Amino acid sequence: MRLSSSLTLIACLAVSGAAQAQTATPDDARLRADALALFEPIPLAPDPAPAAEKVELGKMLFFEPRLSEGHNISCNTCHNLGTGGADLAAFSTGHRWQQGGRNSPTVLNAVYNTAQFWDGRAADLAEQAGGPMQNPVEMGSNPEHVVEQLSGIPGYLPLFASAFPDAPEPISFANATDAIAAFEDTLITPNAPFDRFLRGEDDALSADQKAGLAAFIDQGCAACHSGRNLGGDSYQPFGVVEKPGWSILPPEDKGRFMVTKAEGDEYAFKVPTLRNIALTPPYFHSGAVWDLGTAVGVMATAQLGASLDESQTAQIVAFLESLTGAQPQVVYPILPPSTAETPRPKM
Amino acid sequence: MRLSSSLTLIACLAVSGAAQAQTATPDDARLRADALALFEPIPLAPDPAPAAEKVELGKMLFFEPRLSEGHNISCNTCHNLGTGGADLAAFSTGHRWQQGGRNSPTVLNAVYNTAQFWDGRAADLAEQAGGPMQNPVEMGSNPEHVVEQLSGIPGYLPLFASAFPDAPEPISFANATDAIAAFEDTLITPNAPFDRFLRGEDDALSADQKAGLAAFIDQGCAACHSGRNLGGDSYQPFGVVEKPGWSILPPEDKGRFMVTKAEGDEYAFKVPTLRNIALTPPYFHSGAVWDLGTAVGVMATAQLGASLDESQTAQIVAFLESLTGAQPQVVYPILPPSTAETPRPKM
Repeated sequence: MRLSSSLTLIACLAVSGAAQAQTATPDDARLRADALALFEPIPLAPDPAPAAEKVELGKMLFFEPRLSEGHNISCNTCHNLGTGGADLAAFSTGHRWQQGGRNSPTVLNAVYNTAQFWDGRAADLAEQAGGPMQNPVEMGSNPEHVVEQLSGIPGYLPLFASAFPDAPEPISFANATDAIAAFEDTLITPNAPFDRFLRGEDDALSADQKAGLAAFIDQGCAACHSGRNLGGDSYQPFGVVEKPGWSILPPEDKGRFMVTKAEGDEYAFKVPTLRNIALTPPYFHSGAVWDLGTAVGVMATAQLGASLDESQTAQIVAFLESLTGAQPQVVYPILPPSTAETPRPKM
Repeated sequence: MRLSSSLTLIACLAVSGAAQAQTATPDDARLRADALALFEPIPLAPDPAPAAEKVELGKMLFFEPRLSEGHNISCNTCHNLGTGGADLAAFSTGHRWQQGGRNSPTVLNAVYNTAQFWDGRAADLAEQAGGPMQNPVEMGSNPEHVVEQLSGIPGYLPLFASAFPDAPEPISFANATDAIAAFEDTLITPNAPFDRFLRGEDDALSADQKAGLAAFIDQGCAACHSGRNLGGDSYQPFGVVEKPGWSILPPEDKGRFMVTKAEGDEYAFKVPTLRNIALTPPYFHSGAVWDLGTAVGVMATAQLGASLDESQTAQIVAFLESLTGAQPQVVYPILPPSTAETPRPKM
């Protein structure tokens, strides 16, 4: 992965960044070297590229409200591609106006997370995609009904058959989630200012953003928020130094412990990606904090035992804002029509 | 309008349809002449074309869930561009899971309707767009809060200023609905097989569809379902010959009468467009009928006092299926981000 990233870097420099890279100050060069030891840019395109037929089908299913019991909630409802792949609410509202218990994580760059959900209970995007469909407080359906529903929409059969040519029964729950995952593989956000800095563009970051990046590394944030996604690849107890208040860390949600039952996992959560974080308030699994600066302060106190002054906080926030990449350009899919025999919504 | 349509027809023939038109059988030619006396094709592009800045802003607002009180319902929720501009439910589900009282009409080609809503209470698309936002059972907001909400999302100000350069306060409820209407002006579906037939392509319709078109005219359906939208330009009592059952015509909904209080308007409704009708079950203002053939039979009995046999019904349904045009290709908009100060959802 590091190798392919380096090749991309070289390609990028060859096209546009070489002149700027040559004028790097020693400070910029050192900051970039420090950063490249911890982070890597989002690739410019999905690698490997998922099969086009699966992606196109998966895009339809991602926007398909008939996957929910009421035919009014799709994946995109809570992972809205127009709002950073999340839904700008503390908890999502699902079937029959029920509220979920954790903040919807962004679907953008989720392919680079080591596992899915705040507690990592799904190994990959396909497994994750099946979760909300059958969660009674989310889409309220179940695997059998999803298959019945999709089989009752005639236009889907040829699309599944084309995406899964070797399957004797192309329409299955597993194939539906597999196709959604293929589409989600494409939901990456390259070319954030931070990535362009990593690739050699000194001017991609402002002075404040560079100071924020340095502070992010020096203060220890990057101990957990590292790698391609600046997070997404480990579980950490929330409040390792000092537990935040119960409004931020509700006592009843023990996080990863509910999956592993391991004592050390109490109140541990998957470290979230910080990619596009400025687009996706509110923050934390509890969605309790709406201000990015406040969230940075909570993290410093709870995880690092550090107290940041206003200027440091502002610089780190400025750096986090540099993690907003190019948002996916998606043509809204036209879905196959229902017929009189298609299973109908149940409210 | 007829003139510009004729010019479009000529242009179209010049490009692709001339050879076919020359081989028209006398039957095809007569059917086309009969049809052109009653109907006209959807233009190939919006005419006049709305201003690009308004359309782009309007597209964002059309997909903007923060226009609803719970930040989870947008125009597109009930007028889904992926499902024929409607929502495949008898009644839409709105704020706090409340149900509306009439079936969501399609937004596609709605620009060609003489007025909006089933009872025509909105004169145009802009007036219509303001309705659901402030309907407590739909989006649950109000004009003041819509302005407060949009003003609290910093990225909207430059977009409104660009779309409304002469407005001293660009962000207003009227400008928001005006921009949505501009986007909706573009949501037309040209090139349906029926339109291609009107423009000279004999083979655009199957033999059944041609028979269905002839029956549609001969039986009298076209008395109300005429013009560019095959409907959308008059109010008619539902059950002029024979009232359908109460499940189809609920007694409490007196339709246009609730707007005009005129006795003759009891149970009158705007004749809906039949454009893309095959995409948008269920049917009627009550959403009570899911099968298009059944709906045709109900109309024949209730409005014409006619009893269609199975073959006639199937032919008319085949004709109605020829009214499905090219669906809008829309790049899903990336919305301006919320900040810590942006008004938050209220569930």
